[in-house]
This record gives sequence, C-alpha cells and structure tokens, in this order.
Amino acid sequence: MRAGPSQEEVRRHNLGTLLRYVHVHGATSRAELTSRLGLNRSTIGALTAELTTAGLVSEAAPRETGRAGRPSLVVRPESSMVYAYALSIEVDRLRAARVGLGGRILDRRETDRPRGMQVLDAVQPLTEFVHEMRREVPDGARYIGTGVAVAGMVRRDDGMVRLAPTIGWVEEPVGAALRAELGDGQLTVGNHADVSALVEHARGAAAGCDNVIYLYGDAGVGAGIIADGRRVSGHGGYGGEVGHMVVNPYGRECSCGSRGCWETEIGEYALLKHAGRGDDTGREAVLGVVDAAMRGDSQAQFAVRQVGEWIGFGVGNLVNIFNPEAVIFGGTLRDVYLVAAAQIRSRLNAIALPACREHIRLRTPELGYDAALIGAAELAFEHLLDDPLLLT
Amino acid sequence: MRAGPSQEEVRRHNLGTLLRYVHVHGATSRAELTSRLGLNRSTIGALTAELTTAGLVSEAAPRETGRAGRPSLVVRPESSMVYAYALSIEVDRLRAARVGLGGRILDRRETDRPRGMQVLDAVQPLTEFVHEMRREVPDGARYIGTGVAVAGMVRRDDGMVRLAPTIGWVEEPVGAALRAELGDGQLTVGNHADVSALVEHARGAAAGCDNVIYLYGDAGVGAGIIADGRRVSGHGGYGGEVGHMVVNPYGRECSCGSRGCWETEIGEYALLKHAGRGDDTGREAVLGVVDAAMRGDSQAQFAVRQVGEWIGFGVGNLVNIFNPEAVIFGGTLRDVYLVAAAQIRSRLNAIALPACREHIRLRTPELGYDAALIGAAELAFEHLLDDPLLLT
Repeated sequence: MRAGPSQEEVRRHNLGTLLRYVHVHGATSRAELTSRLGLNRSTIGALTAELTTAGLVSEAAPRETGRAGRPSLVVRPESSMVYAYALSIEVDRLRAARVGLGGRILDRRETDRPRGMQVLDAVQPLTEFVHEMRREVPDGARYIGTGVAVAGMVRRDDGMVRLAPTIGWVEEPVGAALRAELGDGQLTVGNHADVSALVEHARGAAAGCDNVIYLYGDAGVGAGIIADGRRVSGHGGYGGEVGHMVVNPYGRECSCGSRGCWETEIGEYALLKHAGRGDDTGREAVLGVVDAAMRGDSQAQFAVRQVGEWIGFGVGNLVNIFNPEAVIFGGTLRDVYLVAAAQIRSRLNAIALPACREHIRLRTPELGYDAALIGAAELAFEHLLDDPLLLT
Repeated sequence: MRAGPSQEEVRRHNLGTLLRYVHVHGATSRAELTSRLGLNRSTIGALTAELTTAGLVSEAAPRETGRAGRPSLVVRPESSMVYAYALSIEVDRLRAARVGLGGRILDRRETDRPRGMQVLDAVQPLTEFVHEMRREVPDGARYIGTGVAVAGMVRRDDGMVRLAPTIGWVEEPVGAALRAELGDGQLTVGNHADVSALVEHARGAAAGCDNVIYLYGDAGVGAGIIADGRRVSGHGGYGGEVGHMVVNPYGRECSCGSRGCWETEIGEYALLKHAGRGDDTGREAVLGVVDAAMRGDSQAQFAVRQVGEWIGFGVGNLVNIFNPEAVIFGGTLRDVYLVAAAQIRSRLNAIALPACREHIRLRTPELGYDAALIGAAELAFEHLLDDPLLLT
C-alpha cells in the first residue's frame, strides 16, 4: 500500500502519460491530447514544451484541415532521434532492429539461426548487427537502451534464460552475455510471446481489449497474457507457459519431461508428423503443410484438422480460466489458424463455458513478425515512458 | 491512459490508503502508519483526524509499552460502528453475517440449503437473516452495503448468476432478487472463490504474496486468482473457471456439457465414487472418506490417491500458466489436501516446469469457512476504501 503522489510526482506522471500516448498512437493534436488525457489546454501546452525541450517530441502545424480557425498543433514522437535496439532470438532466426520512439523500425538485420546454435555463437552476430546499425545513427540521436526477446523462460531480474527447449538452452545467462559483449548495462531481456502480446495489445490486433491471450507457435508454443490491461507474468516472470499445459495425459513425451503437453499436440512436430513429413523442421515446412492443405492434399488436411482440434481444445481451457475478449494466433499458429479457423472455433465452443466465451474474438496479429522486435524495444522504452526526465 | 491526480484526489487517495491499511492490518500506531505509508507525521495526523470525524476510525493511547517517551497513538477501524452485511450462497448452506470494518464478524446466521433449492426460496431465508441481525445493530452504527458470494459465475455488472451448475441455477437474477427483497440498491454479488481469494490474499494464508491461486472445492471446483496483486476476473467477471479446464479428454461427461473437466476428476462425486460411496453427497460425506483414509480404510485411501493425482495434475497446469507463489486449497479440497499432500506435490512437480514452481508454497486457508463471508463484505467495503468520504 502506498500513499498518493506528491505534486512533483504528478507532473512527472503526466509527462509520462503524454509521451506514452504519442508513443502508442503516433502524431496527436493538442486538442485531442486535452480531451484524451483529461488535462486542460495550458497543462498540455506546458507538458509538451517540456518534452520538446527534452528532445522527446516535436510540434508542428497540421496539414490543411479545411476547417476555419487556428488549427491545434500536432505532437509527434521524435522517432528518428530517440531510439532503442531490439534483438530477437528465435528458433530459426536471429533478428536485430533499431526502433524509434513510437515503435517505428528504422533499421534492421537478420540471419538464420541453425538449430543447436549455442549462446555465445548467437551473441556474436547480434553484437555485430548492433555495431553495424550504430554506424548509421544520425548525429545527436539519443540511445535509450536495448531490449531482447527470447523464445524461452526468462528470469525477470537479470535476463537469465532458465529454459528454452525449442532453442535448446537451459540456464544460460543471455542477459549477462549480451551486456558484456555490447558493453551496455541498459539491456533488458523478456519472453518473446510476452513482448509480442504487449505490442498487439497496445497498437495491434487487441488494441482496446483489456483481456487478451496472445499465442505464439514455432517449434513450441508460448503465450503472452494480458488480464485487466496488465501482463500476467507471475512471480519470477515465467507465467504464460501454456505450451506445457498438459491436455492429453495419454499423449506423447514432451521435451520438458512431462507427457501430453499442449505443444506436443499443436507444435511444429505434431503438424509435420501428421502430414507424413516428420523428418522436416522449421517454419517453411509448416507453411508447406498449410499450403498443401489449402490445395486439397488430403494428408495435409488431416494434419491441419488434428492440430486444429487440439488448438481449439487448449484455447477452450484458457478461455475458461481467463474469460478474454481476444485470442491472437501468432507465429506459425497464425497460418494454421487461417486454414483451421472453423474447426478451432467449434472445438473451443464445445469446451469453453458460454459466459466465458460470449464476447471472444479470434484474431491474427496485425504486426506480424515485427511484433517481437517492436515489443523488445518496448522493454527499453518502458523506463523512459515511466519517467521521461529520468535520463535527461 | 489517464493523467495524474489533482491535489484533492491525492488527499482522498491517501485517506483511502490509510483506512485500507487499518482495515486489513487492524490497530496500527501512528508511527507505523508514517513509515508504512511513506507520509510524514503531520499528514498522518491530519488524515487520521479526518477519518475520526467521519466515524471510520478511532484513536487511543496504546497499552503500556515499557519504553520511555510519549507513545504513538494507535489507530483502529471502527469495527462495531461501521458494518456491511455479507451473504453466502453455497451448495449445501446459506449463510449471512454482519461484518464490521476491519473484517470482524459481529453477528452470523446460517441454515442448510437442500440441493435443488430455487433462487426465490434461497432469497427468503437470507432476507430474514438480515432482518434479524438488523434488530441487534447498536444505535448510530453505520451501514455501508451488502456483499453476496455465490458459488457460480456472476456477471460483474448486475449480479446475474449466469451458471452455477453445482447449485443448479442458470441465468438467475440473484442480484436483482436480493435487491428487491431487501429494498437495498447497495448490493454487490461476486463469485465465492474470487472473494475468498481476496481475503486470503489480504489477511490470510497468502498475505504478502502477489501471485496466488485459491482453489475451492465442494460439488464443483472454482478458483480465485491473483496475478501481480490483482484479481484476474476476465472480461465479464467469469475468469477462474478452472474446474472446467479439461484435463482428461477421455474422461467422464461434465454437468457443463463438456467431458473430462477437472472437477469431474477432483470434485465431490469423483472422490465418493472412487470410495464406493457414489450415492452419497455433501461435505460430510467427503470428510467421511478423508477420515476413513486416515484410519487406514483401503478403498478410501484409493479414492484419495486417485483424486490427489488429478489435483496435482491440474495444479501443475495452473502453475505453468501463472507461476504463482502460493496455491491455497479451500473448501473440501483442504481436507483432501491434508491427506494427499505428498502425492499432490509429486504430481505437480512432474507436470510443472522447475522455474514455474520453484518458489511455490502449498497452503490451507487461514480464514477457513469465514473467508467467503469476510470476502463478500469486502465487496461492500470496496467503495468506502476507494474513497472514504464518498458516503459522508
């Protein structure tokens, strides 16, 4: 329990609120900020002036509005001058981007990640990407920090990757390794699905929804969960491991040591195996099955049906637990969802209680594969948005 | 997104924070309030004076401290003079209490609820209990509102009970019926497990834990879930229906229409059936099996083992999803937990990922059967604690 804020805390809170608004919504007129934030015009003017001085936003007259009267100035985030680095360590890819305030990707790099690649071998190309992108940064631009998304369980406090079965890492100090290599203490590591969920919630397919389940599939399955507008991250930061919800007690052994985990029924291997392609791996192979199913290949259709049933089954369980407004299918689950939507919906309806599912929308991501990068950058921007003057 | 509060809002927030502190923690010295709330002594003094004038707290010198110097005054909630009514509609019981600020039960009534009893037949004795208790209220005492806990899915907005399979109600306007009968608009209805979870979180077995799963078992199984200190209630208020998480796709039909729901494996019927007592029902029958198992009855032990396995299984799933610090076993699950703890723990360990379960504590409730009543009263006190001057 904490007492209310002081005057000075209120001012800083308001600066953060205004900056966050334009960060999420992009260029916004002073008039709209006044009404959205519930502050009067002079306060908005003072806050904007302060953020402009700090180099975080700029103001300009809007394009011709066609209306009479003096137009309200438009406030926009200084996307090209205030930036973070975003890194994403995925099953098959290593990606890096420079992301401007406002979530704009200014530069990007990526390379394949051979399965089995170790931490130090992954840190090296990511570091090189950052060095390359750094050379392109305009003079005077301001670095805020670096965010890293990893497809695994990440300890919130220090970025230790506790378990990332699909990447093959256990107890690897990814945060420490990257901090050392980049010589940068401003580095935060988060779970891939968690940060993607945050972005789809803030400015994507779940904008305006307070209760959201974002599922991400590749070799495994993870989730980022938003309840009542806030991320469900759990005690150590490991919440959302829905891929290891056991759905089939008589099912196949899982890499985690348990049996019948959801990801053994809906992950990449299950789909490829049902399709008679059990020796293949990777995103392209999954898309191959989905394409074949759309073209009428009966074994591919069988595979998609099997997996679709189990997707609906697990989503039904999650709907009973969370009563969400939106479920978003990301990664390869997006493609499977597109061909198995009817089946997923039907199984979900059979399992979820009517009240729990009555307002639910099933969606694909709006930000696609960029969500993880933009979300990783959010980890870096978070401190700035909480207190814009902290770093000045 | 909302801008920061005004000076007046801060003052009211601080009044609420102080009142909430003594409501949850009981009598507290001014010195401790100063340090806990991070406000200076004169502010604490002014806030206390205002709450005293409003009749919500009182101050007195503490008992002899044995220390030198002037002792700090002790602030306590006016439990006997500020109260709410709490009603609880359960599978086998109807209960009512008058609960003082601070969560003290001042008066109580209860009666059996024959299974199959309809809404209007339940409203009548509850109304009568309130009338009886009202006659005992001291002059000048202040009524805050009425809270109702129902073992079912409750629409947050109006207290409509959407589905309460174990009580046998579907789409019943419990909130409206009680409001009409009591002639009282200040009545809020919530889910039994949700309100119990709030109380165990605030002042019971999960005090100080920010991520908590409170399970409640009777004929069915429900949960109240706290993530990052806040209740996970979902879009319409129906979250936490973990009893309808399907754990056994090849299992028995559930009253909800699905198959293999968790409550078909760990609910009252499953235990009694495994124990060869499938014709019995009710809490006493469950306790009978638990007692028999403790005395060495082999069929009762078999039943407890079977159910214990499935309890551990479902808890393991929830631990992977929520990464909680505490799981609390309430209702008849408390008694089953006490005889099957080792087995539950072992199955949980097999299913939950090590990182998700590493700091978990399994607990029984501290407030026992009173949690639902004290929690129902919280629904009424909530408005007062948010803004103590709202009603003066």
